[in-house]
Amino acid sequence: MQKDIDKCIAGIDIGGTKIALAIATPDGKIISKDRFSTSSENGAKAILARTAIKIRELADEARKDLIGVGIACAGPLDIKSKMTINPPNLPGWENFPVGETVEEQLRVPVSFDNDANAAALGEYMYGAGRGYKNLVYITISTGIGGGVIINNQLLHGTGDGAGEVGHLTVLPDGPVCGCGSRGCLELLCSGTGIARRAKESVLSGRETSMTSLVERVEDITSSTVVDAALAGDPVARQIWNETIRLLGIGIGNILVTVSPEIVILGGGVSLTGERLLAPLREFVYSHVRILPADRIPIVTASLADESGIYGALELARQSLNT
Amino acid sequence: MQKDIDKCIAGIDIGGTKIALAIATPDGKIISKDRFSTSSENGAKAILARTAIKIRELADEARKDLIGVGIACAGPLDIKSKMTINPPNLPGWENFPVGETVEEQLRVPVSFDNDANAAALGEYMYGAGRGYKNLVYITISTGIGGGVIINNQLLHGTGDGAGEVGHLTVLPDGPVCGCGSRGCLELLCSGTGIARRAKESVLSGRETSMTSLVERVEDITSSTVVDAALAGDPVARQIWNETIRLLGIGIGNILVTVSPEIVILGGGVSLTGERLLAPLREFVYSHVRILPADRIPIVTASLADESGIYGALELARQSLNT
Repeated sequence: MQKDIDKCIAGIDIGGTKIALAIATPDGKIISKDRFSTSSENGAKAILARTAIKIRELADEARKDLIGVGIACAGPLDIKSKMTINPPNLPGWENFPVGETVEEQLRVPVSFDNDANAAALGEYMYGAGRGYKNLVYITISTGIGGGVIINNQLLHGTGDGAGEVGHLTVLPDGPVCGCGSRGCLELLCSGTGIARRAKESVLSGRETSMTSLVERVEDITSSTVVDAALAGDPVARQIWNETIRLLGIGIGNILVTVSPEIVILGGGVSLTGERLLAPLREFVYSHVRILPADRIPIVTASLADESGIYGALELARQSLNT
Repeated sequence: MQKDIDKCIAGIDIGGTKIALAIATPDGKIISKDRFSTSSENGAKAILARTAIKIRELADEARKDLIGVGIACAGPLDIKSKMTINPPNLPGWENFPVGETVEEQLRVPVSFDNDANAAALGEYMYGAGRGYKNLVYITISTGIGGGVIINNQLLHGTGDGAGEVGHLTVLPDGPVCGCGSRGCLELLCSGTGIARRAKESVLSGRETSMTSLVERVEDITSSTVVDAALAGDPVARQIWNETIRLLGIGIGNILVTVSPEIVILGGGVSLTGERLLAPLREFVYSHVRILPADRIPIVTASLADESGIYGALELARQSLNT
C-alpha cells in the first residue's frame, strides 16, 4: 500500500462563469490549480470531461495517485444524488448527473455539495473560520447564499435548506422575490438587488451622480452605489444605508437563532471590505440586544474567491476520512 | 457499588409562578413529582431549601439514592456559573447562585440551563421531538423563547444566545421591544403582545365584541382574541391573522437558517392547538418557497407544561453520562 505522500485529492468549483480546479495533498495542501470559463455552449458533459482531463494531467505532473474528488456546484442541486436540478447560472445543466459523470471519468469517489456550503466549509477549515466550531458564512454576490457549521459539521437540514439565508424575510411587505416570497434578503441586498434598487431610483427621476459614473443606467452595479455613496451622493447613500440595514436585520435574525462564534461574508459585494463591514457591525451590534452580539466578529472571507475550491477539497478529504 | 435501579435523579423547573420538581430513574422515568407556587416573598434561598427538602423526601419514599439534579430556570441566566442574572419573572432572584445553593443542599452535581432550552430538550427526548436529531422548540407564553437542537445536541451558541427567537425581527419598523430593538417577535406575538395589541385596538375606539367577553379592557388576554376571532369579530380576526403572519415570518426565518426536521410550539398560546397550528402551517408552507417547508411538521409540545421538568431531568441524565 502506498503512503499518503503519493496520493492526492482534487477539488472542483463549478460556477456560472468559471470552473476552478485544484489538486492537493490528502490533508488539503494545494499542489497545483487551474481555472477556465464555463463555456456553457459546450454542454455540461464536455466541460466536465475537460475538467477531468486537466485533473489527470495535474495529478500525473505531480506524480500522485488521485484518490478522491470534491465538487462544489452552483445550485439548486440534489446533493444526495449529486445532480444539478435547474441552476439558473448554468444553462444546459438541467438534471445533470455531475457526480456520476466525474466518477465515471476519474474512477474515484466524488463528494458533492452546493457552492455556498462548500465555501463555508473552505473558510471553516482553511480560512477566516479556522478554530471556530460554530459559524455562518454568507455569500453576497449575484444572489445571496450561505452555509452553517455547527459543532464542526456542515448543517444541511431538511431538503438541504439550512443556510438559505438569501431568503430570510427582511422586509415583510417588500417586493416579490424570484422564489415567490416577499422581501427576501437576496432580492434586496445581493449585488443584483443593490444595482436594481439604484437603477429604479435613477429611472424614477431622482438626481444622482451615479449616472455620471456609468455610460448607461443599465451599467450601474453595486460598486457604483458604494463609490457614489462614499463620495457623498445622497441617493446612493440612502440605497447603501438601506442595504446595510436590511443585511443587518437578516444577520440579526441568524444571530438570535444560532448565535454562531463568527459570521463570515464572501462574494463580490463583500470585496467592498470595511466600507461594508464597519457600518454593518455598527448596525448589528446595536440592533441585536438580547445577546452579546459584539462578541461575534463579522469579517470577510479570507480565501476570497477560493473559498469554494478549498471547500471542494475539504469535501473530498472528509469523505475519505469517514 | 449500587446498581442504577437503586439510584434516582431529580429535575427542578423554576418558573415565575410555580416550581415543579420530579424524581426519576437515571434513564428518565418519572417516579414521583410535586409542584408549589414560587412564593417570591420568601426569597430564592427559602424556596430552594423547600424544594431540596421535598426532593429528599421523595427520594427517601422511593428508597433511592439521589445522584444528580437538573435545573431549568427562567432567564436571563449565566448558565456556566449556574446563576440567575435579573429574571423579570423572579423578583428577588437577582444574581442568585441557584446551582451552587442546590448543590450545597443536596450534595449532588447540579446541571443548569434556561427554561426554553430545557423544554426543547424535554420535547426532544420524551415528547414531540422524539426520533428527530434537529429541531426547534418555541415557547409562546408571557414572552417568546426557544431552544435549538442540532445533531442531537442542544445548541447554546455565543453568550448562550442560540434559540433567542423571541427577538427575531419580524417587523423592521415596528414598535420598540423591551430588549431595545424594534419589531421583535416576542413584543408582537407573545401572549402579552397579542393581548396588548387587542387592548390598543379597543382603546383606539374600534368596535369589537372582545369588550363583551371581559369585564374590563385590562382583562383581555390572547384567549379573548382567539375566541372572538373564531366567533367572527373582525377586529379580533385582524389581530389574530397578523399574529399568525408575524409568527410565520419568524418561523420562516428560522427554517431558512437551520431547516430543522420539526418545529415544536409550547407555552400558553400554543394551547390554542389547531386554531393556531392550521393557519400557521398554511402561512409558513406558502411563505417559505426556497425549501420544501411542508416537509417540516409544525406541532405543539406533547408534554404540555411538563416539557421543562422533563428537560431538567434530561439535563441531569446527560451530565451523569458525560
